[in-house]
Amino acid sequence: MLVVGELINTSRKHIREAVEAKDAAYIQRIAKEQVEAGADYLDINCGTRVFDEEETMAWLVNTVREVVQLPLCIDSPNPKALAVGLGLASNGQSMVNSISAEKERFESVLPLVQKYKTKVVALCMDDKGIPETAEDRLRVADTLVSDLLAAGILQDDIYLDPLIKPLGVNNQYGVEVLDSVRSIHLKYPKIHFVCGLSNISFGLPERKLLNRTFMVMNIAVGMDAFILDPLDQTIMSMFGAARALAGQDEYCMEYITGVRAGRIKA
Amino acid sequence: MLVVGELINTSRKHIREAVEAKDAAYIQRIAKEQVEAGADYLDINCGTRVFDEEETMAWLVNTVREVVQLPLCIDSPNPKALAVGLGLASNGQSMVNSISAEKERFESVLPLVQKYKTKVVALCMDDKGIPETAEDRLRVADTLVSDLLAAGILQDDIYLDPLIKPLGVNNQYGVEVLDSVRSIHLKYPKIHFVCGLSNISFGLPERKLLNRTFMVMNIAVGMDAFILDPLDQTIMSMFGAARALAGQDEYCMEYITGVRAGRIKA
Repeated sequence: MLVVGELINTSRKHIREAVEAKDAAYIQRIAKEQVEAGADYLDINCGTRVFDEEETMAWLVNTVREVVQLPLCIDSPNPKALAVGLGLASNGQSMVNSISAEKERFESVLPLVQKYKTKVVALCMDDKGIPETAEDRLRVADTLVSDLLAAGILQDDIYLDPLIKPLGVNNQYGVEVLDSVRSIHLKYPKIHFVCGLSNISFGLPERKLLNRTFMVMNIAVGMDAFILDPLDQTIMSMFGAARALAGQDEYCMEYITGVRAGRIKA
Repeated sequence: MLVVGELINTSRKHIREAVEAKDAAYIQRIAKEQVEAGADYLDINCGTRVFDEEETMAWLVNTVREVVQLPLCIDSPNPKALAVGLGLASNGQSMVNSISAEKERFESVLPLVQKYKTKVVALCMDDKGIPETAEDRLRVADTLVSDLLAAGILQDDIYLDPLIKPLGVNNQYGVEVLDSVRSIHLKYPKIHFVCGLSNISFGLPERKLLNRTFMVMNIAVGMDAFILDPLDQTIMSMFGAARALAGQDEYCMEYITGVRAGRIKA
């Protein structure tokens, strides 16, 4: 199971300001804090900087890799920015965030996944948009998975993102995600699942409660990676507990060690 | 989905002392607090009082029903104590906790379920003990369900308890419960599931974190009732969030109302 630390994203005010001021120390501190909190990957996203995304991506990747050994998740809809980030990332196996079944995106991102032998986040959407039902998601996932496998990508490197829509819009949107993860997991047990959590709670109160509760429900049906804020001790504690309860923590040693170190708390 | 408030149990020190002192006011306060916190049923258990269980059960049920309108969950392994409690309980449809596939227990408890037309907690165990694997649980559940249906009990009144064993003993015990709930739920979609949560965390640190995380995982696979402490705001908040995320809360109105009333908090 993987935690992808989401904090280095220029849509966040403090990161935007640090990028504008070329404040490497701030970026490095946030990178190190995420590592210490237990992240397995660090997401690097500067998609808000349309005018200089490639240059910013290069600066961020260089800044972060000076101080941390973790592999990076290079996050952009723009293949050029992905290429820059992947070319500079040098800590282990990078992750690309993201490909999809949209024809143009698939064709432009796939060569990067192949060239750098990365893990890849594959969004369950195609040129018709985000699927409405679990069956539609399964159909898009089938296309995506078979196209990725045909291109030589390993099952173990694929992280399907079912794309979460707001529960406040339709109270079946949570169940749709859970059902689709469960059914795709049954069909492709070696393929992974990942998601960001905040969409589920959009427009509802006490969003963090909904986000972390939904994370746990997803772990129960087979999701095994999350893009989240690892500095949120409550969600990391629940992640550690759910990983143990899902039988993914031998002798509960990670859980017990986390409690002893003060990282995991009720 | 149901919350059964677990606090009126003579294995708890303050309840034992209140029973010994015939302190009706204390028992009534705990009863009312559980109602206000959102319990749907109140469990009444005086199984530690082997020497006067029937007398104590009568006193507790009479004491509680003076101040609350909620139906009661009469909880004892002793059919005589169950009979006393059920005879006095008068708030709506009572629940019996519990029957099992053990021959003697099944035969002695069934007539009470039939006579008082109660809901019934059915423990997934037989005369061979608690099943080890999900398949064994499914086999015991099959026997229990078919025997209960043959005796005229409605599916909607059956609450199967998969019987949780400590994760610290075997790190697959959580998964075994989740798998068995999922598979029994697929086979009998109209039958309910209930459990107490504390066994899962026995012997491990930060037990409440494991208990509430496991509750959420169980909701994701179809469990819909829990015997828990409704005065624990964190677990009740997660219950409310998970109920909404499981699509069981139309327009998220219970969730939103709970947040507004201060009962549900991140």
